[in-house]
This record gives sequence, C-alpha cells and structure tokens, in this order.
Amino acid sequence: MTRRVHNFTPGPATLPLPVLQRIQEEFLDFNGLGASVLEISHFSEDFKQVVHDCEALLRELLEIPARYRIVFAHGGGSMEFSMVPLNLIARKPARKALYVESGYFSESALREGGRYGAAVVVASSRNTNYDRIPALDAAALDPAASYLHITTNNTMVGTRWRTFPQAGEIPLVGDATSEILSRPMDISRFGVLYAAAQKNLGPSGISVAIVREDLLGHALPVTPKMINYAQLARDHSLSNTANTFSIYVARLMLQWVKTSGGVPAMEAANERKAALVYGALDRHAGFYRPHARPEHRSTMNVTFRLPSAELDDRFVAAAGGEGLYHLRGHRRFGGIRASLYNGMTVEGAQALAAFMEEFARRNG
Amino acid sequence: MTRRVHNFTPGPATLPLPVLQRIQEEFLDFNGLGASVLEISHFSEDFKQVVHDCEALLRELLEIPARYRIVFAHGGGSMEFSMVPLNLIARKPARKALYVESGYFSESALREGGRYGAAVVVASSRNTNYDRIPALDAAALDPAASYLHITTNNTMVGTRWRTFPQAGEIPLVGDATSEILSRPMDISRFGVLYAAAQKNLGPSGISVAIVREDLLGHALPVTPKMINYAQLARDHSLSNTANTFSIYVARLMLQWVKTSGGVPAMEAANERKAALVYGALDRHAGFYRPHARPEHRSTMNVTFRLPSAELDDRFVAAAGGEGLYHLRGHRRFGGIRASLYNGMTVEGAQALAAFMEEFARRNG
Repeated sequence: MTRRVHNFTPGPATLPLPVLQRIQEEFLDFNGLGASVLEISHFSEDFKQVVHDCEALLRELLEIPARYRIVFAHGGGSMEFSMVPLNLIARKPARKALYVESGYFSESALREGGRYGAAVVVASSRNTNYDRIPALDAAALDPAASYLHITTNNTMVGTRWRTFPQAGEIPLVGDATSEILSRPMDISRFGVLYAAAQKNLGPSGISVAIVREDLLGHALPVTPKMINYAQLARDHSLSNTANTFSIYVARLMLQWVKTSGGVPAMEAANERKAALVYGALDRHAGFYRPHARPEHRSTMNVTFRLPSAELDDRFVAAAGGEGLYHLRGHRRFGGIRASLYNGMTVEGAQALAAFMEEFARRNG
Repeated sequence: MTRRVHNFTPGPATLPLPVLQRIQEEFLDFNGLGASVLEISHFSEDFKQVVHDCEALLRELLEIPARYRIVFAHGGGSMEFSMVPLNLIARKPARKALYVESGYFSESALREGGRYGAAVVVASSRNTNYDRIPALDAAALDPAASYLHITTNNTMVGTRWRTFPQAGEIPLVGDATSEILSRPMDISRFGVLYAAAQKNLGPSGISVAIVREDLLGHALPVTPKMINYAQLARDHSLSNTANTFSIYVARLMLQWVKTSGGVPAMEAANERKAALVYGALDRHAGFYRPHARPEHRSTMNVTFRLPSAELDDRFVAAAGGEGLYHLRGHRRFGGIRASLYNGMTVEGAQALAAFMEEFARRNG
C-alpha cells in the first residue's frame, strides 16, 4: 500500500485515488490497443471518443444549453486571459472590456485585456487586499463594452462570488478555474465560462471554455490559430495535436463526478469540507486570522494567517509531519492556504480541522 | 505481460517501454511525496528540479551553446507557428519573413507568419507534392528579412534537410518537431530551433524552443504573455502552471536518450531502422512506390504508396493483424507512413520490413 498524504496543494491539485489507480492500471494498454494512452494519435477513433465523451459529460454535468460550444485549448487560465480579449474585444467598435478586480489572477486577466483594447476596472477590492468580492455598481456597466470579466473563485485569496452579477446585454465572462464542477452554476448567465483543468478537471496544460455561439467569429486578425475559439469549435478542439493525456484524465474525472452523484453531490461534500475547516478557524478566532470576509468565503480555498510569520512556518512544518501536504499560501500572499477541491476527501478536511484544533491549543 | 504492438503512429508517438514502466511504477508516489506527479505544484522544489534537469539534459545532449535559452511552452508546433512571427518578425522594420515550403506543416507555419507581416515563400516543392526539399537560391534571401523558416523534417511527406541552408545574417528558424534528438544538429547554425514534444520528447501539449539570446525582446505588443519567448525565458518556463506531466515525461525521455548513448546512438539506431524499411521498399520498387526522393529521405517518417488505394487499405489492415499499428498515411496525403521515431525499436523496424517483404511477395 502506497503512502498517500492529504494534499491541500492549490494546483495541480489532488485527484481522487480511484482515478489515479485507473490511469496506473491501464497505463501500458489503453482500450486494449497494445499501446499507452500517451502513444495514440489525437485523430484515432479511440481518442476522438475521449474528446466527445468529455464534451458530453461536461454538458450533462453542468447542464450546458445547446447554444453553447465547448472547446478545449492548450495553456490553462493564463492563456485564456489572452484568448478572451483576442476573441471578444472586437465585437463592439469601442474595443472596451470591463474587469472586476478581485484577486491576483483578475489582475493578470486585466493586464492581458489591456493589450488589445481598453480594459477598464469597474470594481476592485485591491485596497483591502482582496478580502472580499467588491460591490459592482450597475451604472459602471457601459453597454458599449464587449464583455464584463469576473473571476468566480479567487484561489490565492480565498473568496468567491456567491451569486453572479447582472450585466444586461454585456456578455459576462467568468474564470471558474478554481471552482468549476464544485457547485451548480447557471451557464446561461454567462457569455463565456472558462476554467483551466488543474484544480477540478485533471492535470495542468489545458483549459476548457464554454462559449455562447453568437460570441464566436469576432476574433482579432492577430489571434493565433491555436487560441481562436471559432477555429477550435470548428475542429472539435483538434486544431492541432491535442494534449491527449490531460483530456484523457479529464474524462476520468468527469466520469468520477458523475458516478459520485454529479455536481450537487460535489457541492454537498465541498460545503461539508469547508464547514470543517472554517469551523476550526472560527473556534480559534483569536489565533487564526481568516482572510476572506465571511459572506465571500470560498469553499475551495481557505486562507488565513497565524499571529506571526514564524508561526505560519511552524504550522506548515508540523502539518507536513502529520501527512497534511502543501498548506503554505501563495508566495505573493503569504500565510496559509488549504485548497479543498473536488479531489480532496472529507477525511482530509477532518484531519486538517483536527490538526488546527490541536495546533491552536498548543500554541494559542 | 501486457500485449504491446509495434507502434508506427506519427505522434503522439511510441515511447520506450522502460520510460512507460517507470511512469507507471511511481505514478501514485512521486519522489516519495505521497502524491502523484500529477498532484504537485509547478512551483514545488520537486518540480522545479524536473524543469531544471530537462534544460540541463537537453543542453548536454544537443550541445547547446551558452548563448541560447531553452523555453518550454504550451501548445505544440502549431503554437510555435504563431510564436515565431510574434516574437521575431518585428526585429527588422520591414516585418518580412522568409519561408521554405517543404510540406503541409510548412504551409501552416507560413499562414501564421502572414498574420503578422509579409511572409514570403523563397523556395517550394509544392508542385511536386513535396517529394523533395526544394533548392534554395541564395539571391532570394533578402537581408531585410527578420528570419528564414524551414521545417527540418517533414513528417507527413517523409523528407528532411540533410544539411541546413546558409542564411548569412538572417536568423535561421527550424521546426525540428519530428526529428529533434534523432541526429546531431549544429545548434549554432540556428537562431531558433523548436520542436513539439510528441514525437521524440514525450507526450503532446508542449514544445521546446532553443532561442539565441539576441533574438529575445523583439515581440510584437499583441503577443500573448504565455507565448512570449522573453517572458518564458525570464520565468524559466514557469510563467503559469506548466504542463507538469509532459515535462516530467520529457525528463525521463532525455534521461533515456542519455543512458542509451546520447544523440549519436539515437542516430545510429535510426539509420539502421530506416535502412531496414527503405531496403524492403527498394527491393520491391515496382510494387511499393516511395514518395520522397532518395537524397531527401527522412529517417523518421517513411512514406510510400501501393499500386492502388485498395491495396493501401489491405496493407494497413493486414499489418494491424500482425501487431504493426498505425501505418496509414496522413488523411491529407494518403498512402502509407511508417514513423520510426527514437522510441521505435530496431525489432519493430525488422518486423515491419519482414511484413513488407511478405506482403509484396503475396500481392506483388
């Protein structure tokens, strides 16, 4: 029996053990072909079926309406930060895009938007170090804008949008990298919803974008072929050699979500895990200092600090000794972060909560 | 014992069995961390070491001079088709780039180049269906051009540059996707040499570019962050969440090349494999119709046709029955293609050659 830690890494994230075991078991012989899944053509019938299943499962699990296309692309969230403006900003003559700044990845998305037009911040919680989702004034939503971009869950700071903003005719673009499939989301509220894979969908290297059909076909002429949504949609995500392994694992992850009870079951487990960890935080509120305001707390990423950076370090080291892996906060942010993605078990969250209780008692 | 075919797939390509077995063995527990390699942060010390080793091994195996930087990027060769002009075409005011058309991927590279400036064909073998590397007239090499692009091995048609052209002051850019590490290459002849990973370096999803330092820093303002060579070089290829699995496998592949005797040993094995298959072709020259002119034959991809498309089909089916997998030519090209990348064993090439002899005897 292999030793296995409880892995709170922010991503590439922990995956369900049955998924990993399945990959391992069939690693030398995929579909009885006598070859590894790494060794088959992206154009083979066996692999086309994988892509097809991914699309179908995602559509089913997220109840994606027929008027949306699903495209897998290389590169992850940071590539999507460029894809969104390249594909959408020219759909209105003003070439203006609205961004809500709610964390570090929002900043990065904004910077990429600014390369291709006017990227305007319409709400920001930067002044309070992103401890909340900022209030959005409807009057700031210029109807001449090509889209409004939000980060639905802010992984470094541990906040999330509980409900999504009304943007009227302006297409809402959501970066759901760190929470896709963790709770039901009404896709019809979005023009584009995208997510890198490496939190809830599988290994790193790819992203998925769910794009309303009427938003295809507005790409700037300088858009590289491989990040053109319309091209990818036309080619069923096989515009070049796809990241076959990541897409293969994504299928296993989606099958696992389905057999585990779908997105509502994920949400229930995620609420339970988050309640365990936030419960421990709140019971020792003088010792642990939660970062996010309670009403904007993420269920995926729990962020807090101890009374000193030295105690943060001791916490991380002691937790490591107990098989609780990677609790250090992002280097730009510091403190502690526990990531509780779909792949994290309830047992893992229980173990962390118990450790937090004990650590607070000893050091508080 | 798992059944294993001889896999002639054009890519994602067959990998050495010891590499696959190593991945499988340590799949649930990488470096004794108690987590899969899929589940660790790209910023972890364990993963940074992987990237570092990949760079160092590649530098050693290809004897890359110190004035070159090595960058891993998401997306593969088709993404490099955009990266090259985005990063290089603006280095001269004319924004002009020269392309040699020697196959279908050359065409794709050319098309992407044309998005960002004047992409000019200086030599082409399109008229003879890419059966050769076209002759390049030195007079066509306008010194005002930002670079000259060639495809060093043409995977669909089965040709390769035996020696590389002299381009004077114009940086030579080479797409070595389908032959990197298959033979020694004098890197100092190139401004940029790039390759997608999925033939000789590992799984699909990434590419590596070897970039002469003076060519960094000329990117167009519209260059997405994730495909900016200078940015990637500054960040040691970790500008965002890297494709950790593909890079991990690339390290194993590079280690395997090294312990197998390095690039000269790869070349010797590749010459031997190619001689076996071309030998069978040439012994039945009336039956098999090789596509590439002998002086431009690729050692990586052997392309030919049988007397009829119906016989092509029978050949592929009968070979499949003998455990010789994926011999069908590219859908744009037809016929037969046997890919003999580094991961293909000499035994595989022997089995194919024997099958070809037998098939010709029975059907010729």
